[in-house]
Order: sequence, then structure tokens, then C-alpha cells
Amino acid sequence: MELAKIGATEKGGVCRLALTDLDRQGRDLVTKWARADGLSVTVDQIGNIFMRRAGRNDSLPPVVTGSHIDTQPTGGKFDGNYGVLAGLEVIRTLNEHGMETEAPLEVVIWTNEEGSRFVPVMMGSGVFCGAFSLEHAYQAVDSNGKSVKEELASIGYIGDEVPGQHPIGAYFESHIEQGPVLEQAGHVLGVVPAVLGLTWYDCTVTGFESHAGPTPMAIRKDALQVATYIMQEVVAIANRYPPYGRGTVGMVQVTPNSRNVIPGQVKFSIDLRNVSEDFLSRMNEDLSTYVRDMHKQTGLNIQLQQVSHFPPCPFHSDCIRAIREAVASLGYSSMDVVSGAGHDAIYAARVAPSGMIFVPCKDGVSHNEIEDAEPSHLEAGANVLLQAMLNVASPRLGQKRDAA
Amino acid sequence: MELAKIGATEKGGVCRLALTDLDRQGRDLVTKWARADGLSVTVDQIGNIFMRRAGRNDSLPPVVTGSHIDTQPTGGKFDGNYGVLAGLEVIRTLNEHGMETEAPLEVVIWTNEEGSRFVPVMMGSGVFCGAFSLEHAYQAVDSNGKSVKEELASIGYIGDEVPGQHPIGAYFESHIEQGPVLEQAGHVLGVVPAVLGLTWYDCTVTGFESHAGPTPMAIRKDALQVATYIMQEVVAIANRYPPYGRGTVGMVQVTPNSRNVIPGQVKFSIDLRNVSEDFLSRMNEDLSTYVRDMHKQTGLNIQLQQVSHFPPCPFHSDCIRAIREAVASLGYSSMDVVSGAGHDAIYAARVAPSGMIFVPCKDGVSHNEIEDAEPSHLEAGANVLLQAMLNVASPRLGQKRDAA
Repeated sequence: MELAKIGATEKGGVCRLALTDLDRQGRDLVTKWARADGLSVTVDQIGNIFMRRAGRNDSLPPVVTGSHIDTQPTGGKFDGNYGVLAGLEVIRTLNEHGMETEAPLEVVIWTNEEGSRFVPVMMGSGVFCGAFSLEHAYQAVDSNGKSVKEELASIGYIGDEVPGQHPIGAYFESHIEQGPVLEQAGHVLGVVPAVLGLTWYDCTVTGFESHAGPTPMAIRKDALQVATYIMQEVVAIANRYPPYGRGTVGMVQVTPNSRNVIPGQVKFSIDLRNVSEDFLSRMNEDLSTYVRDMHKQTGLNIQLQQVSHFPPCPFHSDCIRAIREAVASLGYSSMDVVSGAGHDAIYAARVAPSGMIFVPCKDGVSHNEIEDAEPSHLEAGANVLLQAMLNVASPRLGQKRDAA
Repeated sequence: MELAKIGATEKGGVCRLALTDLDRQGRDLVTKWARADGLSVTVDQIGNIFMRRAGRNDSLPPVVTGSHIDTQPTGGKFDGNYGVLAGLEVIRTLNEHGMETEAPLEVVIWTNEEGSRFVPVMMGSGVFCGAFSLEHAYQAVDSNGKSVKEELASIGYIGDEVPGQHPIGAYFESHIEQGPVLEQAGHVLGVVPAVLGLTWYDCTVTGFESHAGPTPMAIRKDALQVATYIMQEVVAIANRYPPYGRGTVGMVQVTPNSRNVIPGQVKFSIDLRNVSEDFLSRMNEDLSTYVRDMHKQTGLNIQLQQVSHFPPCPFHSDCIRAIREAVASLGYSSMDVVSGAGHDAIYAARVAPSGMIFVPCKDGVSHNEIEDAEPSHLEAGANVLLQAMLNVASPRLGQKRDAA
């Protein structure tokens, strides 16, 4: 709640865009807390912050947890921030109990996860794992033409460390679910076996713009009517590949968008997701087939352009097991919940064994100022995170301990 | 082509919005021609211009023809302008042949038919026939806050005559079809038995905005999916009431319109038309029933708000007969074509026997800078107009004469 004051909005949310002065204030506050808890702070060249608690064997690669503290323009208090602060809570609990771990522990703040101000999204973790280069990220500009490099420098968070040269033994991220599954099932904890893969398309149907009155139905080339069938097929495809198939048309642009003109062109987005590469590629094939058939059937030109693709990301069995054991030892009611949204953990998983812990959020709402979560659920998530990290960093300790 | 130079656009169209200085230049040019042709010019308080050729019995109500010379922002050369200039051509032909008519003849320019700059559309003829008041029209403002009254005054076209106090014996309007029916059927002339009635709605479907990734298909409240079924039903309804049923969704607004967010709300326009009051009201009932059923089936809130209604406008049998006889005597290939679009003739029909003559336009395209028409078709339409006016204004003469 203290961190949420920085960039607080009237409706109870937070607007703390990446690399703004508010982001600096947030980073300053969290690192001040970290130093007060005895952690050493390292910043890399893309502004990722690693806050470290030494291990008994400090040469072991650290067990890392964290997330991000940048928000959407009309974001909430919990998305990302919870994962970072749950990490600090783990450290404090260990400090309070005077406990050491074999491996060092670290809490990370990844730079610009949201991508609201600068794309690509998940920028800090993306550079860290080599998904794209530091130079590519530096050159990204916001709508005012300011670059990531100059804004990182201006808030004082360009470090010396080369991104990715920081070793990670294992990575855990706790996060609000951003969906309604846990809440509706009445569970306190979600074990995340994987993040859904996704393919994004822009689909453009081109018909012929004409006057709604004088043009008989039989000779129309109504781009919107053809588009509606494809929009319905997107949902039908998702339903054919359960339980993790997702199909969404979120964005529609009709031309000329006038009440008494038959639409000459309709452009819309398509978002297909699934947990397995096989299912996702079958969904993509179904879509291509349907679009080809619609073109044959209607004669209208239909362009289907892929604009983005992330393969499904299964998490590491060791990390999933560590989380399951933690949940079991603490006795929380839990279920498996795949993550439908992207997280820094997807990129972390490319360089280290990784896993995620979900807690419910109110009505499944996120990326919204009314985003909310129960304190008892947040506490449960932090307890599981502590146990899971101990299970990996210091196995004997982990098995001995109870809830923090 | 001379008139089309005023407000000519680079793409070959015309932008001459109502009550602009370009409109004034157009009015000045046409009335200059009219005066040169010996016509007297009267302007009424809403700026309608009546250009009069005396009859042998000048106390008879005049046989009037005309249309409008204002255009869409990206309009063509023919919409409206053709009807006014065909009227002047009728006068010139009579002058050249030294022919008198029993009743006087008039050519009218109605103010602001298009409604692009000021609503309501068909403003001059609407005030003339009492569809709405002069004060209501005067108070209409454009997007810069300028009123009809001040702009009419500024271009010098507020006359003294009270709108509607001008008698009309019969009214004919010749116009490009603005649809593809005549061209596709290969006919030169269209006799217009009626103008389709229409009902306009705004339909708003409200679901629940949520993240496209984490939200399972089964628990979504996707406003766009529900909207697509209604959009398809609009077309299905039109097809159930042939041959003049029309159903169009032209305008769509998705909220929040973001690629990875399930639409929480979709607002779209619905345009239903038919030639008979009975069919049109059955179409409206079908739509209401479908929307009620969709609400029951999906649980989503659906608002259907009627925003406009014009009843079908059948033209007067005397005028239709006069046109049919003219076509027959001149031997043009013709067919009946209902008008799908609104015209000043709809309002004229409320105060006098009225009829319309259509000529083909290229590819059925109108309200577009590429709008085009064949000179031979335009000539044929003017010939039919001449004969039809003579048939009514001076029956014996009309039956004797050949093509102008």
C-alpha cells in the first residue's frame, strides 16, 4: 500500500509507467527497503535490479524471485508489485528468524514488463534472456520520441552489469492470477504448470463500400458480414481445443464506419492461445483453412497477417514440485491454473528452471484501477513462495519449516 | 461540369458543403444562368431558391422540378446537381423551341439536402413541407458552432418568402440512382414508384471486459460475439422480406478495442428498410424479438434504441403515369427502381403530387469523388423530365412533342 501511493490514481489504482520519475521513486523506495533488510543491490544495463541476500555457500547460483513494479496507465496495486514485495517479505521472514540458506536468495525488479510506454513488453527479462538485444531495447521510443536509453539514464538506473551475465539457479514468480479461475473455484493458491502460447493476427476483409439504401442485398459485398463469420469461428476454434484453447477478437476497425454505408473494409485482431504447441498450431491451421474457405465462398479478399507469436512455456518440473510441496506442507487449498497472460517468468524460464505461484484477484480483474486481492491470499502466496524457495535453496531447511 | 468546378476536389469530385461560400458561388452561378434564361428568382426564409418560367395561365400552381447543389465532403458531380441542371435544361429547350406551357414551370434548389454540415438532412424541403420548424432548422449548428441562420445570412440567401407558402402543382425530381440496379440490368431510365421507408437503431451489447489470456471460454461475457449474431440477423431479416428488404450494420464501436481484452461493450448501428409499411414494421418486430431472445440466451444486456424513422414514401400515381408515358413516347429502355436513399422528393410528396426519375450511375457509386454517369443517360433523363412536366403542365403539348 505504501508503494501504491507512488502514482496512485483517484479511482484507487496506480499509474506508474516504466522509466518515468514515478518509476524511479518506486525503485528508490523498494531498494531503500531492501538495503534496510541487509540486501546488496546490483543494477544491470537495462535497469533490472537484483537485491541479494548472501547464502551460506555464496558461490552457488542464487534462487531468484521477483516481478515488476511498472504498471499500466490505468493499472492496479497488485499486478507485478505483489511479486516483488512478496520476495522482500520472504527475506524479512528469514531475517526475523535469523535463518540462513545454502544458496543466496535474490529479489529482482524487471524493467518495463507492461510495455505500455515502450515496446517490446517484458523488456528487462527479454534482454536478460537474449530474446532481443540491449541495443534494440535502448532504441525503443515512447509516443513523445524519448528513448529507453535516455529515460533509463535520466532516472539513474543504467547499471554496469551486462544483462544475462547474472547467474540464476532457479526462478520463482508470485503473481495475482489476472483471471477468475481460482476465485470461482474457491481456491487460495494456484500452481502454474505453464503459460499459454499465443499467436496474434491482423485480419482484413475487403468488400465494396456502397449505400445502404439503394444496394439490393443480393449484390452487396459487405465486409462486416464476412468478418462476423470469422469472428465467430475464432471462438469456435478455441472451443474445439479445450480446456486451454482461447480465441478472442478484441479490436475492430470498420471503414468508412458510417450508419448508411455498407462497410467496404473491416480490420480486426485475432488472438489464439493454447497450452500445447500441437494444439496451438492446429488452431492456427483451422483458422487459415476457414479464411480460405470464406474467401472461396464469398469472393471477398481476406488477408490474415500474423503479427506476433509466443510458443507455450511449460515451467520446470523441479520448480513446480517445489511449489506443490510447499502448498502441501502448508495445507492450502489449491489447483493447477495455467497462465493465460505473459510474465517475466516466460523469459526467465529460457535461462533457468522457473515456476509461478498464483493467488486469486477479485472478479478476475486486472489491468484496471479496481484490481483487488485479499490480504490473506497474498499472505498465503508469500508463505508458499518462502517454502518453495527454501525447498530449492536449502532443501533440508525447507522441509523442516512451517508457515512464515 | 461548369458548376462542378466550384469546390472541385483533386480526385475529380466536389466538396461544396451547405451554406459555405462555395455553396454561395454555386447558387450565384445557377441563378445567373436562370436569369439569363428569363426566369424570375424567389428565395424563401430557409434559402430554398425557386426559378420560375411563367405559364399561359400564370395563376395555376407551378409544375416544379429540382434537387440540391450542396454535396458530401467527398461527394461527386452528379448527386443533386443533376436534378437542378436537368430542370434548367428543360427550360432552355422550351425557350429554344419558343414553347409556352399552360401552368408555370419552376426549378428549385433545396437548401442543405446532404446534412453533412448541418442536421437534419433534407433541411430546405423539410421546413418547406412542415416536417420541422424554421426555428429548429435555424438553430442547427455545424462542428464549429456556426448556426444555419447566421451562415444563410452570411452567404446572402435568407429570402422573404415564408417556406411552404409557395404553391406546387406537381413535383418531379431527376437523380442518379446511387445504386447499381439500372446499370446491372442495362436500362437507361428508372421509374421510381416509391422511396423505401427506414428505421435506424443504435444497438449496445454490454458484456464484461476481461483479459484474453486468463479468461476461460466458458465464463466469458464477450459483447462482440453476441453482437456478431445480431449483425448477421440484421441481414437475415432483410432477406426474409424481399425484394426491397434492406439490412445494414454500417458503424461499429468496440470498447476498449484492445487486442488482448475481451470486448466489454459493443455499440453498432442498424439500418432496416423496406418499401411497405407492413414489411418494415414486421422487420422491426423481428429484430426486437431476436434481441430479446439473445438477451435471454446469453444473459448479456442488449439495448436497442430507435434513433430515426421515415415511413415508406409511395409517389403519386399521376406523376408516375406522367413519367411512364414520357418514357414510352421516347422509347427508352426502362424499369421500375425503388429509391433506397432519401431525397427532397419525399418531403415534396407531403405537399404535392410527386415523382422521381432515375438514371444509372457508374458502378452504382455515389457519395464518392469517383461518382460518374453517362452523358447519354443524363440526356435521356432530362428528355423524360421535359415530357413528364409537359404531360402535367400542358397535357396536349406533352402528347404532341418528341425528344428535346
